[in-house]
Amino acid sequence: MIVLHHCTSARSFRPLWMLEELGAPYELRMLPFPPRVFAKPYLDINPLGTIPLLEDGDTRMTESAAMCEYLPVRCDPENRLGLHVRPDEPAFGAWLNYLHHGEATLTFPQTIVLRYARFETPERRLPQAAEDYAKWFLSRLRGIEAVLSHNEYLCAGRFTGADISVGYSLMLAQVIDLGPRLPPAVAAYWDRLQQRDGFKRAMAAQEAAAIAQGLSPKAAA
Amino acid sequence: MIVLHHCTSARSFRPLWMLEELGAPYELRMLPFPPRVFAKPYLDINPLGTIPLLEDGDTRMTESAAMCEYLPVRCDPENRLGLHVRPDEPAFGAWLNYLHHGEATLTFPQTIVLRYARFETPERRLPQAAEDYAKWFLSRLRGIEAVLSHNEYLCAGRFTGADISVGYSLMLAQVIDLGPRLPPAVAAYWDRLQQRDGFKRAMAAQEAAAIAQGLSPKAAA
Repeated sequence: MIVLHHCTSARSFRPLWMLEELGAPYELRMLPFPPRVFAKPYLDINPLGTIPLLEDGDTRMTESAAMCEYLPVRCDPENRLGLHVRPDEPAFGAWLNYLHHGEATLTFPQTIVLRYARFETPERRLPQAAEDYAKWFLSRLRGIEAVLSHNEYLCAGRFTGADISVGYSLMLAQVIDLGPRLPPAVAAYWDRLQQRDGFKRAMAAQEAAAIAQGLSPKAAA
Repeated sequence: MIVLHHCTSARSFRPLWMLEELGAPYELRMLPFPPRVFAKPYLDINPLGTIPLLEDGDTRMTESAAMCEYLPVRCDPENRLGLHVRPDEPAFGAWLNYLHHGEATLTFPQTIVLRYARFETPERRLPQAAEDYAKWFLSRLRGIEAVLSHNEYLCAGRFTGADISVGYSLMLAQVIDLGPRLPPAVAAYWDRLQQRDGFKRAMAAQEAAAIAQGLSPKAAA
């Protein structure tokens, strides 16, 4: 059984969403955010204290975008659901690129905004850094804006784990109030993604698990 | 023919190193750093202005860590050189995880240090942000320190593209003077990586190309 350690609406939403798209069985263990402060025993199984942690037999993973490739290859190797892109498909390079792009280029800059505009104590906040990286994030959206102006999904002509990797960065953008600044094709794409059954099931699953495990169903962020 | 657009010792060193490990033919196009300021025609082929850009027929990629998976799968699909990890190997999850970890967790924080300690004009420098993210990077090294204390390479018992993804983050750490703060097993690993013929060939290739193309062979960073 796959075990996913998750905080509501944190990056671990990526593998949760993928598990729901796959219809794969899993156990969802909810944690208060940040776990290194409010759930110290978690450090025994993930010394970095970061979220997510995915356990699958002897496999342990901490990078949520990597799970968007691992889970569909592991749970659906024949790719009947089309959620991954195989090396013999023309979009193989684009698929790998967007998996990384969603986190390294489109999510990390937003965590700097979160940190310096919201999480730090008032005397340690840095409005300049928060605005620098909000702009940095928005400027990088030009790349996917061009693609999404002519395509329903990022690559391969279908919904894949790459859309989950990038889609999560747009979910985070709402949290830090950058939603109104998204360019039009990106904003329309984010609306489409939220209409997916898999997305809705993942949202419902984290809310139900939070209540069942005695945590607030609202995201800390 | 694969074309790689590269700035000396920038993230594009990852695919350059991988191409040399593979012994694959490629064309190296050198650019001054940052290209969006000093090589404006580059924006016509990569509107984001970021480095690297890899062109391989109709495939265009901009994420250097993704290239560490793409290139060995594309150039050595039977994996004779062992530079990628196949889905049927036990280390498949760890391999994907380290590919992402090298960039999203270990490189991006260092770019914040670079920006606010070195690249920004003096009045826009933020020593607090630079030190915050230097510490953030160093604290995340605990994860690979534990693995490298008992293993020569990160996963699968052999050198793979994951070592290139993470290895580049250690190369960047030297540039921003964090080398003396690396923990011991990580520092020894970085020493080992630099002894590889593929690494040495990549270093020589970028120096020769810079001179042949009329650029300084020294990194801007």
